[in-house]
Amino acid sequence: MEQVQSYIKSNEKQFLDELLEILRIPSVSADSAYAGDVRKTAEFVADKLKSAGADKVELHETAGHPIVYGEKLFDPALPTVLVYGHYDVQPPDPLDLWDSPPFEPVIKKTKLHPEGAIFARGACDDKGQMYMHIKAFEAMMAKDSLPCNVKFMIEGEEEVGSDNLGIFCKANADKLACDVVLLSDTSIIANDVPSITVGLRGLSYVEVELTGPNKDLHSGVYGGAVANPINTLCEMVASLKDENNHITIPGFYDDVEVVSIEDRTKMNEAPFSLETYKKDLEIEDIHGEKGYTTLERTSIRPTLDVNGMWGGYTGEGAKTVLPSKAFAKISMRLVPNQDPDKITQLFSDHFKSIAPKGVKVEVNPHHGGQPAVTPTDTAEYKAAHLAMEKTFGKAPIPQRSGGSIPIVALFEEVFGVKSVLMGFGLDSDDIHSPNEHYGVYNYFKGIETIPYFFHYYNELKKS
Amino acid sequence: MEQVQSYIKSNEKQFLDELLEILRIPSVSADSAYAGDVRKTAEFVADKLKSAGADKVELHETAGHPIVYGEKLFDPALPTVLVYGHYDVQPPDPLDLWDSPPFEPVIKKTKLHPEGAIFARGACDDKGQMYMHIKAFEAMMAKDSLPCNVKFMIEGEEEVGSDNLGIFCKANADKLACDVVLLSDTSIIANDVPSITVGLRGLSYVEVELTGPNKDLHSGVYGGAVANPINTLCEMVASLKDENNHITIPGFYDDVEVVSIEDRTKMNEAPFSLETYKKDLEIEDIHGEKGYTTLERTSIRPTLDVNGMWGGYTGEGAKTVLPSKAFAKISMRLVPNQDPDKITQLFSDHFKSIAPKGVKVEVNPHHGGQPAVTPTDTAEYKAAHLAMEKTFGKAPIPQRSGGSIPIVALFEEVFGVKSVLMGFGLDSDDIHSPNEHYGVYNYFKGIETIPYFFHYYNELKKS
Repeated sequence: MEQVQSYIKSNEKQFLDELLEILRIPSVSADSAYAGDVRKTAEFVADKLKSAGADKVELHETAGHPIVYGEKLFDPALPTVLVYGHYDVQPPDPLDLWDSPPFEPVIKKTKLHPEGAIFARGACDDKGQMYMHIKAFEAMMAKDSLPCNVKFMIEGEEEVGSDNLGIFCKANADKLACDVVLLSDTSIIANDVPSITVGLRGLSYVEVELTGPNKDLHSGVYGGAVANPINTLCEMVASLKDENNHITIPGFYDDVEVVSIEDRTKMNEAPFSLETYKKDLEIEDIHGEKGYTTLERTSIRPTLDVNGMWGGYTGEGAKTVLPSKAFAKISMRLVPNQDPDKITQLFSDHFKSIAPKGVKVEVNPHHGGQPAVTPTDTAEYKAAHLAMEKTFGKAPIPQRSGGSIPIVALFEEVFGVKSVLMGFGLDSDDIHSPNEHYGVYNYFKGIETIPYFFHYYNELKKS
Repeated sequence: MEQVQSYIKSNEKQFLDELLEILRIPSVSADSAYAGDVRKTAEFVADKLKSAGADKVELHETAGHPIVYGEKLFDPALPTVLVYGHYDVQPPDPLDLWDSPPFEPVIKKTKLHPEGAIFARGACDDKGQMYMHIKAFEAMMAKDSLPCNVKFMIEGEEEVGSDNLGIFCKANADKLACDVVLLSDTSIIANDVPSITVGLRGLSYVEVELTGPNKDLHSGVYGGAVANPINTLCEMVASLKDENNHITIPGFYDDVEVVSIEDRTKMNEAPFSLETYKKDLEIEDIHGEKGYTTLERTSIRPTLDVNGMWGGYTGEGAKTVLPSKAFAKISMRLVPNQDPDKITQLFSDHFKSIAPKGVKVEVNPHHGGQPAVTPTDTAEYKAAHLAMEKTFGKAPIPQRSGGSIPIVALFEEVFGVKSVLMGFGLDSDDIHSPNEHYGVYNYFKGIETIPYFFHYYNELKKS
């Protein structure tokens, strides 16, 4: 293990340069204009896997973007770890809020990253975290110190719902058979407060389209007599929550897992400063469901957020138009036992039912994802715990996260195994936002920790 | 007068070609990218005024777009008519809903325009209607038959609030002194139901900006705990109307002129088919303030419409962002006795007061305009009545319009005179919308009618 760590140490510059290189390719999976760059990124990943020592490296074609596969199988008696990651990124909009171009990575020091952070779209989510695994693999291979079989499955559609990954997994369940899935696409509480994610929210994401009159109208001639689809959309969206910020969709909370008072108490003992939280976001007050703390609202409670909305004239100056159409992208984060398909259906039925007669409503589902909770009494959780304790010098805290990684539920369903969510980002790393970044410290901490995970996992499986 | 009419007849092709030429220049005043084209259009108008026989033609520079001035003064004893019009146009968005490019005019037959209509941005509002006056002037000058002094004031900022016109009028009140203002920027009920506009709604137009967190956030990590500015904007906009579609801004209705039951009854006798209205707009039902008919809702009652709204991710696919900002353009149509500045202030105070603590609100006023009612017992109204009766073969109906022409109140204030709103468009001409058009019949009907207005006005002022 010392040799592995010293290999990492002596290759730091190379490892960092390669990350910057992959960050320069704009692999925006949501926008078909970037399809060529998405493929280029897949090829980059495949190349690096191959040169690190993986066998059977290939780009598996899908109806969308390709999945990169590679493996190193030593002995069927050894445990097999399937490493999952994604090489696609969120769209960089709004571009004007970036301090440096999203696909021209720069390293700058920040308060939370005194050793410097890499600023680029995908730096943390997930190119930086995914690439740690390839470099840790390279180090273990270089020093003949890989104590498990390993398979890599790196996809290019995580940010658009992983539809084709599901198909790929089901069609290749034998090839992908494993004892555990290991992924780094989550965060730790702080660089001196390591944590492991044990719960994830699910997701239902819909796009709604309202049509009022069949064309844009003059708001003076028709205003007051015809339903304005923007006003109507506002009224419909507003009605989705009551005065306590409870969601009003009938049946929405029916399946929500009730967390015990003991667990909630424990959860609220995690280090958290409301003052720092408000100060960091420059908000005067928080805002959420009555009866729950901020930590609870972002982990054990479902949400409903408008992620985008548009309609009418949005250019410079004033235009007195009564628009024909209005649109919104709306997502709901779900908690254990809520089913995304059921919630999408409940939303759709309810949303259509509340529309006034003067407008037509369409509801189009985007991707969804199952919520997930991982146990802490497994060999894989313990291995991650020991690995992080070793490199951070401090035991990691099990933590529920507000985000969604829908494929965790998929892996459980198809492979019958649990996942280990050993992420190294910070919540403040601005993933999905302008100026996304990832600490250089965190990048190397991840590369150092991963070989320990393999080490302890092998040990624990033997015993 | 016969000679004037036969001059018009024999120059029809030339008059139409010139209109098509000015329609090709994209004089979008709201968008600074078009500033050069706006000026080109002003120069076109000045050239045509000059060649028609106007004196002292000049482009008066303003802080924004220039005002075209020209005059023909015969005798101080004759009445003086100030012709007002505007050469700027609304933005053509959304472009993809146009059947032909907005600045490449084409003539096509429609159900309501069996003789053909000119399709182009500004065809009706107001290039087509403004240009009728220049051509009628040319015809009267060519045949030495102009029985009044005339002054032209054609501005380029009507669609953005006419701020600089107010300054110009006040600074040049002597030069612009007149007995009446004549303008064509309104509509008739139908080609066989002529009408004259005697009431206009005022306008208050604001842009609001909501800021939640200081940057876009990941909706999984922060969703449920931080006020989402789009959801919040929806809630705030929705709360501006109650279940009867009454506007809830305190004091909003305080100054609204109460129209008598007799006048309302008379108003509702105007030809109007609710079935045709709904069918034309392809809406299942109308929608408006409880207790009023469609004709009343669009004329004697104030309104509040969102003209544009945007925030978050509006591109292809799905992005799980909790945005930092959300925006809306909101306009209120006002009725007699409501003051735009007061209403803008009431809106601003109320809107800020209803914002939750987690968001910051900015309210920026765009242009406003006073509502106006013109009397029907004046020489100018009677002259317009007789002129239209002559050319349409039918007495025109006095009618209140839902739109706003804020400068009518300005003219009354600065010049102490009334305006005559002798428009020739149809409400169905899609002004401010894609596929704006103006009937070829209406264009020539206007050119024919205007000389009769001058004739009768002179006669009535003498008597």
